[in-house]
Amino acid sequence: MIVCKFGGTSVASAEQIQKVAAIVKANPARKIVAVSAPGKRSGDDIKVTDLLIELANAALKNEQVEEKIQNVVNRFQAIAEGLHLDNSICDVIAEDLRERVQGDQTNEELFIDSIKAAGEDNNAKLIAAYFTSIGMPARYVSPKSGLVVNDLPERTFALPEAYENLAVLKETKEIIVFPGFFGYTKAGVLRTFDRGGSDITGSILAAAVEAELYENFTDVDCVFSANPKVVNDPVEIKEITYREMRELSYAGFSVFHDEALMPVYKIGVPVNIKNTNNPSAPGTRIVARRPATGRPVTGISADSGFSTLYVSKYLMNREVGFGRRLLQILEDENISYEHTPSGLDDISVIMRSHQLTPENETRIIERVKNELQAEHVEMRHGFSMIVIVGEGMRHNTGLAARAATAISQTGANIEMINQGSSEVSLVFGVLQEYENQILQALYKEFFAHA
Amino acid sequence: MIVCKFGGTSVASAEQIQKVAAIVKANPARKIVAVSAPGKRSGDDIKVTDLLIELANAALKNEQVEEKIQNVVNRFQAIAEGLHLDNSICDVIAEDLRERVQGDQTNEELFIDSIKAAGEDNNAKLIAAYFTSIGMPARYVSPKSGLVVNDLPERTFALPEAYENLAVLKETKEIIVFPGFFGYTKAGVLRTFDRGGSDITGSILAAAVEAELYENFTDVDCVFSANPKVVNDPVEIKEITYREMRELSYAGFSVFHDEALMPVYKIGVPVNIKNTNNPSAPGTRIVARRPATGRPVTGISADSGFSTLYVSKYLMNREVGFGRRLLQILEDENISYEHTPSGLDDISVIMRSHQLTPENETRIIERVKNELQAEHVEMRHGFSMIVIVGEGMRHNTGLAARAATAISQTGANIEMINQGSSEVSLVFGVLQEYENQILQALYKEFFAHA
Repeated sequence: MIVCKFGGTSVASAEQIQKVAAIVKANPARKIVAVSAPGKRSGDDIKVTDLLIELANAALKNEQVEEKIQNVVNRFQAIAEGLHLDNSICDVIAEDLRERVQGDQTNEELFIDSIKAAGEDNNAKLIAAYFTSIGMPARYVSPKSGLVVNDLPERTFALPEAYENLAVLKETKEIIVFPGFFGYTKAGVLRTFDRGGSDITGSILAAAVEAELYENFTDVDCVFSANPKVVNDPVEIKEITYREMRELSYAGFSVFHDEALMPVYKIGVPVNIKNTNNPSAPGTRIVARRPATGRPVTGISADSGFSTLYVSKYLMNREVGFGRRLLQILEDENISYEHTPSGLDDISVIMRSHQLTPENETRIIERVKNELQAEHVEMRHGFSMIVIVGEGMRHNTGLAARAATAISQTGANIEMINQGSSEVSLVFGVLQEYENQILQALYKEFFAHA
Repeated sequence: MIVCKFGGTSVASAEQIQKVAAIVKANPARKIVAVSAPGKRSGDDIKVTDLLIELANAALKNEQVEEKIQNVVNRFQAIAEGLHLDNSICDVIAEDLRERVQGDQTNEELFIDSIKAAGEDNNAKLIAAYFTSIGMPARYVSPKSGLVVNDLPERTFALPEAYENLAVLKETKEIIVFPGFFGYTKAGVLRTFDRGGSDITGSILAAAVEAELYENFTDVDCVFSANPKVVNDPVEIKEITYREMRELSYAGFSVFHDEALMPVYKIGVPVNIKNTNNPSAPGTRIVARRPATGRPVTGISADSGFSTLYVSKYLMNREVGFGRRLLQILEDENISYEHTPSGLDDISVIMRSHQLTPENETRIIERVKNELQAEHVEMRHGFSMIVIVGEGMRHNTGLAARAATAISQTGANIEMINQGSSEVSLVFGVLQEYENQILQALYKEFFAHA
């Protein structure tokens, strides 16, 4: 059994959904289909999810909502017409939206969640109806049937019983169309996943039914070894391990949401990232193990927007508990960090800058000074992290030297190097302005020469 | 005013103590002299401190002590005779030792401390008597007069009031001879400092009297830029900052105990490491700031005996508090660590292997597995750390590349790289067996070529 997931652009229009039907039809193993809400049809189009957020905000402000409901219905109507479906489905969708708007507004987050989810939910109903109409017996299945998620305030994730509940889908005769992006708490409250939420739903379904394959259909042919917006014509990745994919997702590899890998990673379901618009392309396979290639490096990613908390104190490393107490102060501010390179008497904590505000920055610096009696405490901004990833790096003597040499030839200073004993990745911290130049230099070193 | 400290070999014999007298006499600013116990006179000699430890252990086991007391007295007697001192000083020393042996044995550690300290204490009395006998008015001052230290169970350190108490020594007319290595708690209990303890005493005295200089006399001409046992004829370091010295002391630079730098570092007293046997050599100066030299690297040190706790868990870096809880587990076992290089889903904690036992290793691994639900936990042994240190490294583009290239040319794999944002140091983790080869290669790269 194969679980397929179709992203927003793959289900943005009648034409796209016809491609989806052709793909599903082409392989009878494709029995479970997770779908996103209709995405953009062209560059300046608006996603249905964004129309729904507008609707939710208008409702919260007690503004007129009918026009906004109509905007959403119109998108579905265009699709239904293109697919020659009975127009009555649009009345059902309009009715559904009006009901959601009348819902409980006590918790704004949950209210917005319930409106947002209407995009996937109604699209799944529509696509199931379409499949059936063209002789592909299909059935819409609601997440209410078993995709149980945790309660607020934690970020949404599927509870272990969700997998048990959804395992029954294994027995399906018809094609199941399942809306992505959301589940229900035990108390029946709808909650959406984070960004990339439909990827997560597909992955949960694939794990639950122990699929032979999880096909993730999007609008690119494959994952590239480097950002094609920065590097000219980068090598396509044919096969990549979960671990490599995860390390790359650190920065710039947004094709597949990293949290979505978790469920399939756990039970070892391979993932195939494919293009709805070019289904014959082999795409990129994400697997537990892959044969070694001639190339030690699989991909290079880069991302900006990092800050560094620099702390120095004489004889710091003699103080048992110093690092732990430093991290506790960040935890108290609910800040997660990426790396903590250290000398003997100084330590830097590297974190995403978006977590910082002038207020918490001041609080952190004051606490580190007062509670840890640090001599020098400073928050520095404007860093990029460059990550070189490859299972083949572990036993490749001289790789760090090649990377550092390529970087230094751009004239950039290496602000930070972090290489753990796993050696699947090697991280360099540099000033933001050098990011693209360094990515190009590293790509040239490890791919053009290989 | 200059505070001088003379180490064990500098005060090991009458001949050596005559050199000390000549040095002190040569500069009237040398008013405070901290002394060690008599050290080795030749390679196979036994230090007085080791004789005293034997004595203490015999006393604790209720064995015969008189012969062991005599062994110690004999050493002092040989010195006294060589210095033409009245033999009565040896009776005083023998009496002192018998009194110490009769002391409170309730706490073995404190009992051993009190016996060990007899080496410095009696040597200071003897040297003061000798100075006076040759027309250099001198006075023995006991740490009881003000060197107040903390109570058990913490490691011994001087309390802030010690500095206030000892400040009065500024006014001395005579030369003060002060025994190194120990102080007294507020309750009057003798406690010794850790290894390098006489260095600490000298540093405390220098800070207390705000000396213009702290001269640390030992048996080498200077600090070398690399271990002369591994690197052939290494460059002498003329001037080094406190910070560089500290980072180098991490490994292999045992000339000056790093904790001893703290008191002088705090108020900025420069340190001069000099050779009792060659006092005209300029030695190595340790200062707060030094002018830039043409060389980015000041020294390279290496040390073996490191272990790595490797922990991996999918999506680890999404868990706020993961690193903090990992460090807490080590802290509960009272284990200090050196570095924590990390990827996205793995982290390595590098620590000194001597802290580990089969028992605490098992406990740590079990707790990390159970409490942090880590997927893979492993303790790896047999690593060396190589540290490249230099104030000039901060703005030296390409330095990491040069270092990594030099290492890879030895054929060794780089297991770990740690470079913080301070950039005074760059740390490489390698397998122990490559240590010397890498130290030689790095020395060649940064010193032979410079």
